[in-house]
Amino acid sequence: PAPAECALLPSFSLGAGRPRLGTAAGERLAQPPLSMEEEAGTEREPLLSGRTAGRGHPPRGTFGASDCHDPAAFCTVQDAAGADHDLYINQAVVFIEDAIQYRSINHRVDSKSLWLYRWYYSKICQWVLSLTITLILALAFIETPSSLTITSDIRYRGTAWEPPCGLTESIELICFLVFIADVSVKSYLIGWEEFRKTKWLLAYILILVVSLIDWTVSLSFYCTETVRIRRILRPFFLLQNSSMMKKTLKCVNSTLPEMASVVLLLAVHLCLFTMFGMLLFARSKDKQQDKEWVGYFHNLPDSLTSLLVLLTTANNPDVMIPAYSKNRAYSIFFILFTVLGNLFLMNLLTAIIYNQFRGYLLKSVQSSLLRRRLGIRAAFEVLCSLKESPVSTNELCVNANTLLQVLPKVEMDSCCKQAILRTVRSCPHGILSAALFQKLFDELDKDPVKQHPPKPEYQSPFLQKVQFAFGHRFFGYLGNIVALANIVSICVILVMDADKQLSERDDYFLGAINCFFILYYLLEMLLKILAMGFKRYLSYPSNRFDGLLTLILLVLEISTFAVYGFPHPGWRPEMMGLLSLWDMVRLVNMLIVFRFLRIIPNMKFMALVASTLLDLVKNLRAFAGLLVVVFYAFAMTGIVLFKGAVVPMGNMSVVNATSGNAP
Amino acid sequence: PAPAECALLPSFSLGAGRPRLGTAAGERLAQPPLSMEEEAGTEREPLLSGRTAGRGHPPRGTFGASDCHDPAAFCTVQDAAGADHDLYINQAVVFIEDAIQYRSINHRVDSKSLWLYRWYYSKICQWVLSLTITLILALAFIETPSSLTITSDIRYRGTAWEPPCGLTESIELICFLVFIADVSVKSYLIGWEEFRKTKWLLAYILILVVSLIDWTVSLSFYCTETVRIRRILRPFFLLQNSSMMKKTLKCVNSTLPEMASVVLLLAVHLCLFTMFGMLLFARSKDKQQDKEWVGYFHNLPDSLTSLLVLLTTANNPDVMIPAYSKNRAYSIFFILFTVLGNLFLMNLLTAIIYNQFRGYLLKSVQSSLLRRRLGIRAAFEVLCSLKESPVSTNELCVNANTLLQVLPKVEMDSCCKQAILRTVRSCPHGILSAALFQKLFDELDKDPVKQHPPKPEYQSPFLQKVQFAFGHRFFGYLGNIVALANIVSICVILVMDADKQLSERDDYFLGAINCFFILYYLLEMLLKILAMGFKRYLSYPSNRFDGLLTLILLVLEISTFAVYGFPHPGWRPEMMGLLSLWDMVRLVNMLIVFRFLRIIPNMKFMALVASTLLDLVKNLRAFAGLLVVVFYAFAMTGIVLFKGAVVPMGNMSVVNATSGNAP
Repeated sequence: PAPAECALLPSFSLGAGRPRLGTAAGERLAQPPLSMEEEAGTEREPLLSGRTAGRGHPPRGTFGASDCHDPAAFCTVQDAAGADHDLYINQAVVFIEDAIQYRSINHRVDSKSLWLYRWYYSKICQWVLSLTITLILALAFIETPSSLTITSDIRYRGTAWEPPCGLTESIELICFLVFIADVSVKSYLIGWEEFRKTKWLLAYILILVVSLIDWTVSLSFYCTETVRIRRILRPFFLLQNSSMMKKTLKCVNSTLPEMASVVLLLAVHLCLFTMFGMLLFARSKDKQQDKEWVGYFHNLPDSLTSLLVLLTTANNPDVMIPAYSKNRAYSIFFILFTVLGNLFLMNLLTAIIYNQFRGYLLKSVQSSLLRRRLGIRAAFEVLCSLKESPVSTNELCVNANTLLQVLPKVEMDSCCKQAILRTVRSCPHGILSAALFQKLFDELDKDPVKQHPPKPEYQSPFLQKVQFAFGHRFFGYLGNIVALANIVSICVILVMDADKQLSERDDYFLGAINCFFILYYLLEMLLKILAMGFKRYLSYPSNRFDGLLTLILLVLEISTFAVYGFPHPGWRPEMMGLLSLWDMVRLVNMLIVFRFLRIIPNMKFMALVASTLLDLVKNLRAFAGLLVVVFYAFAMTGIVLFKGAVVPMGNMSVVNATSGNAP
Repeated sequence: PAPAECALLPSFSLGAGRPRLGTAAGERLAQPPLSMEEEAGTEREPLLSGRTAGRGHPPRGTFGASDCHDPAAFCTVQDAAGADHDLYINQAVVFIEDAIQYRSINHRVDSKSLWLYRWYYSKICQWVLSLTITLILALAFIETPSSLTITSDIRYRGTAWEPPCGLTESIELICFLVFIADVSVKSYLIGWEEFRKTKWLLAYILILVVSLIDWTVSLSFYCTETVRIRRILRPFFLLQNSSMMKKTLKCVNSTLPEMASVVLLLAVHLCLFTMFGMLLFARSKDKQQDKEWVGYFHNLPDSLTSLLVLLTTANNPDVMIPAYSKNRAYSIFFILFTVLGNLFLMNLLTAIIYNQFRGYLLKSVQSSLLRRRLGIRAAFEVLCSLKESPVSTNELCVNANTLLQVLPKVEMDSCCKQAILRTVRSCPHGILSAALFQKLFDELDKDPVKQHPPKPEYQSPFLQKVQFAFGHRFFGYLGNIVALANIVSICVILVMDADKQLSERDDYFLGAINCFFILYYLLEMLLKILAMGFKRYLSYPSNRFDGLLTLILLVLEISTFAVYGFPHPGWRPEMMGLLSLWDMVRLVNMLIVFRFLRIIPNMKFMALVASTLLDLVKNLRAFAGLLVVVFYAFAMTGIVLFKGAVVPMGNMSVVNATSGNAP
């Protein structure tokens, strides 16, 4: 029946061309250690297994599994004309790009859709989308109830700038239009069948509709309405744009039931101890002695609050002291409560969350790897059907030349691309089997070993000696020692000058020292460039950091000298110019302290910790984004709820007296 | 050469009797997955391997490895007379006891030493030792600079009791004498060779000598000397008595180098940010505006302290506020500092400690298991040499009857003992091989499945129905619901009476309710005893808890009625008796709240968490002990260092005014 189906579904060329996809490919894909059943991602992946292939109606033009799952049936590819050839190449390019970016391959694959897909996932398009999200989130800083001024002190700050009605609204409208375009393209690309199943997209549309209605209401009231629902909904745009954040949210969601049990236990713990506390610290006849009752256990809400705060240890000694000063034995109550609640139950909560998230991280990595393998396999299957001279009909394989046409079009790291191209060219017989094809792209997982440009080769023996001396790592260590000496000298002068009035201060010594050190830094940079050559010098990140700071220091120092002259005794810091001399010197000192961080790569353990921290920052982005989402929503809700609840005191003298006592 | 050596070492009967010990046993012991190289414990274990056996001079009479490690050489055991037979049996008993308690088998094994060893490790002896340690540690509460009174409020407390000179000193002397006896017995038992290697014992002796000298000095000054070194040294006695605490200390010690790296990093982080801070928040001309400089960055020690405290987030918003109110951008400095220092580096420290201790716990379990296997194997080897009719000279095995003589003398859990005896009796041929012998004692690792006594069998159909109804678990649930209702009623009355004066209060309602509920509890207890029988009722811990509290409540209630009569309107709580009625009612209420904990075993998750907590407490004992050691030493040092540094204010009015403002 297969040829008939091919004829019936001309636009569904992929499914028709490769009848084995549903079975053979699925079986082979099931072999890697990753379980095909796991779908940690929120987007559904069309697993190329026989199970999926058995579905009734594959979406037209969407890359799904074909209906012709009879291994004996075999559609010939003689009808693949020149246009089809280009289409197949493009499909392969997109699938490989999907694999590289760990994206789902579940989207339309006709010629126009492919173009749209590549355009949608192009850097510029994604950048515009990110910019729009940042813009709409940043609007909160200038919108009407904002109090953004340089100082936060209500006594000195001026009135914040109020944007005219319609300014922020028009920016919002532009953002909404971008989002509408985004949701339309996304929905079109994944097709109707998948769209219906993607709850995130449905929510996206719903939120856009609500926002637009709210926006209309807002404009029709001339920006005087108090409640703006769309502001609270804004963080959703950030959430829906990041698949990592969606995954994290899903994991948080799955952690909730287990957490609920411990939270329930904590609640029981709290309630029982509250009742105990109320019975223990009851009102007594001696007015002097029932401070505990008055202060913390006056009634049920008071007692509950006291103990809830004690669970965070924020009021740790205070709540115990009145009772303790009455009778030392009362401390047993508080110690028991804190040890059970804070040391045991709270840590149990941490342990449960830790355990859940460890599993989640593993799943997330597995799911990403699965998507990559799926993308590569899909590209292989597409390229298979292009094979001009089939070696044997039983084994699927790809012509190396075809792959050489595809690879240059793929957007990927140039190092990886070169490595893959080299391997393909050295391939025996110019034929790639499925296993070999997968293995090719293992290159993507490897960290590229960075090749530094070679040192310049000098003819003169003197220059060669210079090159040896200043290219040696000991010269780098010397630089570190000099930087340390500079830091120490600044520190000494800071300590000496700590109590001096500004008018008594003389910056001559510090200026002279810094001048000397900056000259040394310049010399060090030049000598290193001489020894290593400019390109090699720049290829080390530590050198770039070093050189940039040295140049900034040089510019600052020269401009200081231009305005205030060379350091001389009586170089007073209070003279005013563009920036006062005092500010200039401070800035130079700060940069010198900052430059001291160059020692990090030289110390093994520090380098390890620093690189761990960098990795952490990378992995924590999703969590940080989630925090932004939660904080933003709470902040917006808080603005609406507590509007006018806190009245800033206008009386200057009262404010002065209070703030004078406070520190 | 073996027989000759046997003759040379008549008292070293163990080594002589079993020439294969050094090789065969060692090889077999090396087979379990536990690595023989690991010695997580602080005490050295004489591993029965060929390596150890190759040592020059085994300690006389100590159970070590023998010199006759030629597998072909074979000392006959014909010289094992009746006395020897008893000795061997005793040795086997001690080795099995060592295995049960995870003790090292590295001690003297002659007849008298064995008696001394069993006596030393008997419950009474260890109990006396623990009591002595508790006593000497508790002395600090009554010794001279102590201020132990019921109230801690200096306004109301009387002068603390001062013991006469010589009282605490004589108690101390008794303790020291016990410790001297302890160290002598211990040293004698492990023998001179091992004693020299055991640093803990050497330190023990040293500390005892120093303490005794300090004690003499103290007495010769008639207790007027200020510095008492022996007090600071006291926690050592606690430390040296627990092998778990010694292991924990060793692990803490091995964690230090890794921690040092992170602490160094933290120090660098702190120093760099301090310099940045001092440059950033320098003195400015505007007096109004440099609050930050005055308050937190005045000089180097101030700045370091501010940021060190910020690392603990204790002064979290305070230190930022003056700078923030000057310019909001300053918050970046504080956010960066806190995120890097507190969120990243501090958590890195936690991760490193966690990682180290996980390894340690594993090692500790392995080492304990190894000691157990070693003890059992040693017992096997000893019993082997007793075998009356050797079946074959090639395979070592033990007569089941011999083991049946040994087992009744071993002190162990009676459940386990019965199980092992059953297995031995059912043994085919009455012969046990080494593997079978080891397997016998696997029973020790099993949790005994507790058999509850059977229910009483009633003849009358009515009693049978009663038994069915009140033995059913729904009756237990009903009891829980009633207890909850009681709690809720107490809670409601507490809330209603929260603001009433003591004189306005009427306890009639509460008294009547509690009387009813306590009658129900009594009825429940009696019905349960009827249904289950007294023994079965007591075999459940929850029933014991329940019944005990019910009885206490009943006694309290009856005595209340005896003193104050039955509850009637106008049952005023302020009437005074032995305890005031008010106190009585409160006590009853507290006990009812406490009784509510009986629901824990009925809720699955709660039971799980509660049992986890119990296990935690068991495992945390060593850590808690270490905390006691550290706190005690610091407290004692603090008493010496800060003597007279804080003078309590004598002026009542000043104290009143301050304490009135404080809360």
